[in-house]
Amino acid sequence: MKTLQLALMGTGRMAHVYGPKINAHPGLQLEVVFNPRMESAQKVAKIYGGRAMDDLDTVLADSAVDAVIIATPTDTHVDYIIAAAKAGKPIYCEKPLDQSLDRVDQALAALDANPVPFMLGFNRRFDPDNNALREAVKRGEVGRLNMLMSWSREPSTPPIEYVRASGGYFVDATIHDIDLLCWIAGERPVEVQAFGSCMFDDQIGAEGDFDLTMTTLKMPSGALVHINNSRSCAYGFDQRLEAFGDKGMVQTLNHREDNLVRWDNCRTVAREPLKHFFLERYDSSFYRALDEFHNAVTTNRTPSATAEDGRSALAVALACMSSALSGQVVRLDHRS
Amino acid sequence: MKTLQLALMGTGRMAHVYGPKINAHPGLQLEVVFNPRMESAQKVAKIYGGRAMDDLDTVLADSAVDAVIIATPTDTHVDYIIAAAKAGKPIYCEKPLDQSLDRVDQALAALDANPVPFMLGFNRRFDPDNNALREAVKRGEVGRLNMLMSWSREPSTPPIEYVRASGGYFVDATIHDIDLLCWIAGERPVEVQAFGSCMFDDQIGAEGDFDLTMTTLKMPSGALVHINNSRSCAYGFDQRLEAFGDKGMVQTLNHREDNLVRWDNCRTVAREPLKHFFLERYDSSFYRALDEFHNAVTTNRTPSATAEDGRSALAVALACMSSALSGQVVRLDHRS
Amino acid sequence: MKTLQLALMGTGRMAHVYGPKINAHPGLQLEVVFNPRMESAQKVAKIYGGRAMDDLDTVLADSAVDAVIIATPTDTHVDYIIAAAKAGKPIYCEKPLDQSLDRVDQALAALDANPVPFMLGFNRRFDPDNNALREAVKRGEVGRLNMLMSWSREPSTPPIEYVRASGGYFVDATIHDIDLLCWIAGERPVEVQAFGSCMFDDQIGAEGDFDLTMTTLKMPSGALVHINNSRSCAYGFDQRLEAFGDKGMVQTLNHREDNLVRWDNCRTVAREPLKHFFLERYDSSFYRALDEFHNAVTTNRTPSATAEDGRSALAVALACMSSALSGQVVRLDHRS
Amino acid sequence: MKTLQLALMGTGRMAHVYGPKINAHPGLQLEVVFNPRMESAQKVAKIYGGRAMDDLDTVLADSAVDAVIIATPTDTHVDYIIAAAKAGKPIYCEKPLDQSLDRVDQALAALDANPVPFMLGFNRRFDPDNNALREAVKRGEVGRLNMLMSWSREPSTPPIEYVRASGGYFVDATIHDIDLLCWIAGERPVEVQAFGSCMFDDQIGAEGDFDLTMTTLKMPSGALVHINNSRSCAYGFDQRLEAFGDKGMVQTLNHREDNLVRWDNCRTVAREPLKHFFLERYDSSFYRALDEFHNAVTTNRTPSATAEDGRSALAVALACMSSALSGQVVRLDHRS
Repeated sequence: MKTLQLALMGTGRMAHVYGPKINAHPGLQLEVVFNPRMESAQKVAKIYGGRAMDDLDTVLADSAVDAVIIATPTDTHVDYIIAAAKAGKPIYCEKPLDQSLDRVDQALAALDANPVPFMLGFNRRFDPDNNALREAVKRGEVGRLNMLMSWSREPSTPPIEYVRASGGYFVDATIHDIDLLCWIAGERPVEVQAFGSCMFDDQIGAEGDFDLTMTTLKMPSGALVHINNSRSCAYGFDQRLEAFGDKGMVQTLNHREDNLVRWDNCRTVAREPLKHFFLERYDSSFYRALDEFHNAVTTNRTPSATAEDGRSALAVALACMSSALSGQVVRLDHRS
Repeated sequence: MKTLQLALMGTGRMAHVYGPKINAHPGLQLEVVFNPRMESAQKVAKIYGGRAMDDLDTVLADSAVDAVIIATPTDTHVDYIIAAAKAGKPIYCEKPLDQSLDRVDQALAALDANPVPFMLGFNRRFDPDNNALREAVKRGEVGRLNMLMSWSREPSTPPIEYVRASGGYFVDATIHDIDLLCWIAGERPVEVQAFGSCMFDDQIGAEGDFDLTMTTLKMPSGALVHINNSRSCAYGFDQRLEAFGDKGMVQTLNHREDNLVRWDNCRTVAREPLKHFFLERYDSSFYRALDEFHNAVTTNRTPSATAEDGRSALAVALACMSSALSGQVVRLDHRS
Repeated sequence: MKTLQLALMGTGRMAHVYGPKINAHPGLQLEVVFNPRMESAQKVAKIYGGRAMDDLDTVLADSAVDAVIIATPTDTHVDYIIAAAKAGKPIYCEKPLDQSLDRVDQALAALDANPVPFMLGFNRRFDPDNNALREAVKRGEVGRLNMLMSWSREPSTPPIEYVRASGGYFVDATIHDIDLLCWIAGERPVEVQAFGSCMFDDQIGAEGDFDLTMTTLKMPSGALVHINNSRSCAYGFDQRLEAFGDKGMVQTLNHREDNLVRWDNCRTVAREPLKHFFLERYDSSFYRALDEFHNAVTTNRTPSATAEDGRSALAVALACMSSALSGQVVRLDHRS
Repeated sequence: MKTLQLALMGTGRMAHVYGPKINAHPGLQLEVVFNPRMESAQKVAKIYGGRAMDDLDTVLADSAVDAVIIATPTDTHVDYIIAAAKAGKPIYCEKPLDQSLDRVDQALAALDANPVPFMLGFNRRFDPDNNALREAVKRGEVGRLNMLMSWSREPSTPPIEYVRASGGYFVDATIHDIDLLCWIAGERPVEVQAFGSCMFDDQIGAEGDFDLTMTTLKMPSGALVHINNSRSCAYGFDQRLEAFGDKGMVQTLNHREDNLVRWDNCRTVAREPLKHFFLERYDSSFYRALDEFHNAVTTNRTPSATAEDGRSALAVALACMSSALSGQVVRLDHRS
């Protein structure tokens, strides 16, 4: 197995997700931890290994760096993509590319001009269940796909600062469902409609954002798609998919903390709480996403989630937001 | 228990649903079977009892008739309601009232002028599971209700003649989900949006109708509602509800033909097929609906499903159809 | 449908089970309620109909009585069977026949001498799930039957007076599982072994009885059978069957009070309590048992549960008790 | 984390189970692979690393070897234990210790004389589900433990050579259930009874062995235990536990190949096949067992599964075999 030596850009929450996965992967080596503030870089390098560096140009010029993992704040993704592409380094970038289509197009232009391998961190594609459902659909188990449904309800509302910086619920969260469902369906919506409410945290509504949404997509084939999102969920992180076709239906089940069934004198049958949130539920998907990146880069093939996939999902998410805000159905054109 | 002596109007499919239930109910007595064609009336009277009659005025003037069950073709409902109301007979009418709001309003006017007890046959309200879910919601088990979802997928597409006379998929079928969900939520939508496709039978599309729809309702409280309808379903009659609130979720499960779990060497765990269609799945709800009618009439209270409920559900269903045809979100006013 | 006019012998708990079922059955008519104490007979006749009578000979000589339902205390069953057989009346007798094999043999002798139709009330055979499992086994769904398991755990320990009169846990309760499993397997055990404990109520142990038992049967075919009994069960009336063969396994599931699934913030998924006890869980089986009796008598065929079946189950139950008391495996001969 | 440098004794099937787990564990280092035939040692060392060695004394004298993993044929376990104990090396030994209690006692004597840390590879204790069930029982979730049940049905009969060398089904397989259930119950049986049949492979019966057994244990507390074993199972590796107490019940569920639910037009609901056999089902438990060994040795505490546990489980398994062969209940004394 070829080893990829990585520079991890960023030292925030996602760096602590990727650090252990890089160390666990036999083909990945954490060579550099980068943050413009040396202190932060040193802190993370001390935990996961690698050299702490604070100068971007030096990192990108370093011949020991085979590829970069961009796990910085969203509004810096495009700048790092452009710089890394110019330096000829393969790029794995945490989602979303950016909250603005214009900025995303700048990244795409840089990647066109400097065609380095690029993968976007749509980690849910790499969840074994989600992948098994897609494989079942592709194998024709449900026949022609007529309906797709996705539930993504988060255990509790995020801090209002997070909400303010998020680009809105659709761009921050629904974009995951959009990417996943389009990837399963193999097509992109031509019409979208969304209703949004604010039911859990008034501060979210005061920002003009939503914490409860229902989104419907109409696909070119006629297939209909429902996305069910909530920023709060009393029973944990509710993550389900349902694919309905003319020959049957396939569903994924929620993951639980254990595999026990309990029978007691009040409610008879209980299962353990759901896994708490995405770090618990999708833990293995981050490893698998890095593995896909490693495999694609070392075998010279296009990884599963491209920059174009990211642009497309963002365009749909923005259209959903527009629909929820305007109260109108929104039609979409897709670049071929 | 007071006995209600009934005239059963109509001798079609629904007469054969109501006949045995009337006979099984200790407080109901089938006194008259009415059809303008005496031969049809006689055929049904022979099976379920009662005097066969073919003259409407005579039936309604008959002092042995305490109440009427209207199970005639939809386009005759309003005329029979008006006649029975004028004759002072309590009325149980199979849904829908009519396919036209104007006609419905004529019935409502007649009922205003002649205020006899009236109940609309929205039988799904009387299904024990649906009722238990509503009771759980009312008891506050899920806290504030934020989302409601209903699946209603039928085992196979109906004959095209049925489709032509049905008033369209929304008026014929979605109206059940609309009534059920508004009844559970305790409110009526202010905005509706629907996408429709034709995926199963091209003849349905040629009629300008749909066989696959996703409908979203926005409630005054901010609660969001999803209705999932399909005219065909490979695995049977898929009937599910999901109520999501800030304290939890309650779902109903599908009914199966038996209560066995099977483990074999191809697919490991299997459950028996779902109950085939509404006659099987909702069998007991028809009895319970008649029981509600009996109880309401004999105790002088308003039954659960009123003519106004019927008008409201029809108005929402027509708005859904309009949304699906126009590609627009539709706003609704409700009469207080 | 021919009508059977019945004399209901006995006015205790089981009379209140059978009374409503007789009235609900279109082919059964409650003609007489018998108790040597007229007052008791009158009380029950007032509720369910029929003439109250207190003289056995008069009842059995009454030409309006087509058949008798024996629902008297266990130790009187044999006397009533002998009397009814001599009078030529078809007999439905609540289980068990008696607690003593000698007494049972007197009843069998009377039935041999006066061969009237006879059915023993092993109602669990008539439960739709138990029956569906047996049908699946008979159809070969699990291939050759290798193992059978039955759980029967009761919601709470009975009054000590009940225990004293019961003939012991095996004769009172395990006999149901024994009959059911032998009926499903189509064979009777050659070896039995049982362990018993007293874990719930010390008074039961003081009587020399058990409230927790595990019983194992070895069948002539080599198939092995496990019976799991408890006089107390915190989560309700636990009733399960499992049939394991060389091609797969079939299980029955417990019955619940409703069909909802609940997700909340402590335990995530809960189902409603189990149905409380046998009157709730096996409600329909009593009706079906009477229907079998009606059908067998009016069509001159042997009903499903015979007196010989009752003798056999009692012999096995007594062997189990002997095994639990002696700590030895017990071998059994069966009359052919 | 302290590193333990290991000598892996044996190069058969279990060496290929332990090799990758040792490499995956951050605190374990594969220092030596031992087999008296150098060629075999070299083959395995080439895959998993470590120095190949063929002389036992040299291995045990090697100061770079901190501990030994005994994964050799069962009949050599005791010799290696004695040698390693004399050499003062901590020992992890694959189960069973031996098929003979006398031989086991020789190992115990050696461990008494040379008290090195010792752990027996009862890997099922380390399965997360089994462990969670035990923790639930210990926490009192089911109240006083009254019944324990274990199912262990293997996907297909082993080769007859395997059967011949296995020491019999009880010693080879039931011993796992015995150890697990005694560990959960916190007590050892005073009476055991077993029935065995040969239903799948006549060759097994010809060897005097069984391929289908039901075993019942009676515990000193009065708790009853059922073990359900089959050498063949059409639907995969059926592994379930059920703990029933006076406050409720806890069960473990089978593991499946994926987490999808499938609905189709023949059987409605299907789940993927069970995980095939123990390597798939208990994969993580081997890693966790090694982790327990590492943790116990490096922190100077007694590991979870001791040599005495192994002796006790063997004594019970031999008593079960004796019961099945003699048709008698067997009483057991336990060394305190």
